[in-house]
Amino acid sequence: MDELGAIKLLSRKLDIGDDCAVLDIGGRKVLVTTDMLHKKTDFPKWLTPEMIGWRSALVSLSDIAAMGGKPIALVIALGMKKFDAKFLSGFSRGVEKCCSFCRCKYAGGDLDKHDELTVVGTAIGVAENPVGRAGARVGDIVCVTGTLGKACYYFKKRKWLRQKPRINEGQKISKHASAMMDISDGLARSLHQMGARSRAGFRITFEKIPLFGGEEGMFFGDDYELLFTVPKSKLRKIKGVGFSVIGEVVKSGVWLEKNGYPGKLENKGWTH
Amino acid sequence: MDELGAIKLLSRKLDIGDDCAVLDIGGRKVLVTTDMLHKKTDFPKWLTPEMIGWRSALVSLSDIAAMGGKPIALVIALGMKKFDAKFLSGFSRGVEKCCSFCRCKYAGGDLDKHDELTVVGTAIGVAENPVGRAGARVGDIVCVTGTLGKACYYFKKRKWLRQKPRINEGQKISKHASAMMDISDGLARSLHQMGARSRAGFRITFEKIPLFGGEEGMFFGDDYELLFTVPKSKLRKIKGVGFSVIGEVVKSGVWLEKNGYPGKLENKGWTH
Repeated sequence: MDELGAIKLLSRKLDIGDDCAVLDIGGRKVLVTTDMLHKKTDFPKWLTPEMIGWRSALVSLSDIAAMGGKPIALVIALGMKKFDAKFLSGFSRGVEKCCSFCRCKYAGGDLDKHDELTVVGTAIGVAENPVGRAGARVGDIVCVTGTLGKACYYFKKRKWLRQKPRINEGQKISKHASAMMDISDGLARSLHQMGARSRAGFRITFEKIPLFGGEEGMFFGDDYELLFTVPKSKLRKIKGVGFSVIGEVVKSGVWLEKNGYPGKLENKGWTH
Repeated sequence: MDELGAIKLLSRKLDIGDDCAVLDIGGRKVLVTTDMLHKKTDFPKWLTPEMIGWRSALVSLSDIAAMGGKPIALVIALGMKKFDAKFLSGFSRGVEKCCSFCRCKYAGGDLDKHDELTVVGTAIGVAENPVGRAGARVGDIVCVTGTLGKACYYFKKRKWLRQKPRINEGQKISKHASAMMDISDGLARSLHQMGARSRAGFRITFEKIPLFGGEEGMFFGDDYELLFTVPKSKLRKIKGVGFSVIGEVVKSGVWLEKNGYPGKLENKGWTH
């Protein structure tokens, strides 16, 4: 069984499938999300401890942004071979900087001996209107924030961008969007995931995608921009957020129109 | 640097040191705790997938109990070499059973490919009077719930007990206790940790410790009972909870009186 199969198995049981779980605590909608990262697949050798810390906070805080949430706190479980004061102080500086950017408390965690550097961040937030992946409706407009593909472009040069979770953007968009998620697994995979949850499809115009570098930027992921859909009538209500309209919601399939010719957009991207 | 050194480094920065972090969300006191477990140190070969799931939920839910909290939800990040439907269904059954015992929602998580089976559970709860480790005062009575050393005794026989987080007990005790924590690292280490946080010491009477099996049961851990201190005047107010009085809070040191002779109780136990 591959990851998608296993996720399906678990998601049937757990009703997951959005970027965060939504809990009711005293009438408040509380968001929770947890992410495992480890050396082999997530931390190339040239990442500094501070970048590793930033990245560990980023992936979870981006999930809070993706639901339109305001982050409250982050906890981090860290496993490593040998506790090293220099690594730990760089790592926690990176976590703190990303938390501080998001006005989120770094509230502690767990330390463990582990052969492979392994980090699990869990973020907690609140949202007035949590927006999941299931609400895209035929005729809605498809948009993305910022620029896609930068992470891919710089990764090849062994550079890692200090990307920011789109916290403010997510909250503003959440007031009007019908569906939203972050693009951490790449635009192509994200469209397929949102389509599956919404039981809908997408027609995207290649030339409208705000791509930095080549087409592969659609499949690489690690961008942390937001993908969202919004009813046509509400599009103009989204203010103070930089975004691009890239297509519209259709009945089924994920279609990429390029030079006026439509084709299927493959479901490939970042598999952790 | 060893684990305690690293924890000290991080705890200075993060003000951790209790079993959970306490957040304020809309006036509610929300508890969060995260724990990393992995095959090498936490899952002996003879544990079934269901036991691994139960244990993964147990350690975090016990931390909620240790602060006097009511669990709300648990999320689990799971890393394993090959996604295996049989393992996943046994594992999630174990998690669900432990959550269901605690009336807690198993709210989802993350799946990841990882060379070593690694599980990070994060539990969220609420508490009216969260009780930390720092409040033990000279003259307070020292108590433990249940029986200690069972886990140690059965571990040697390659048996693992389905231990229960002391959720109800923790909530009842929290109304009166000055300090509380769970005994997951063993009684000896737990006393030293509480002593350090409270800037106090303990005089414990060996014969009063509700030990199952030998003396080593004080050092093995994995018991998930609660250690707490309570002002003398409030001791009788704790009702509906089975517990033993084992000693009292003193100015400094951790002393074990045995056959009437006092000695130092070593700071050794479960180091993860």
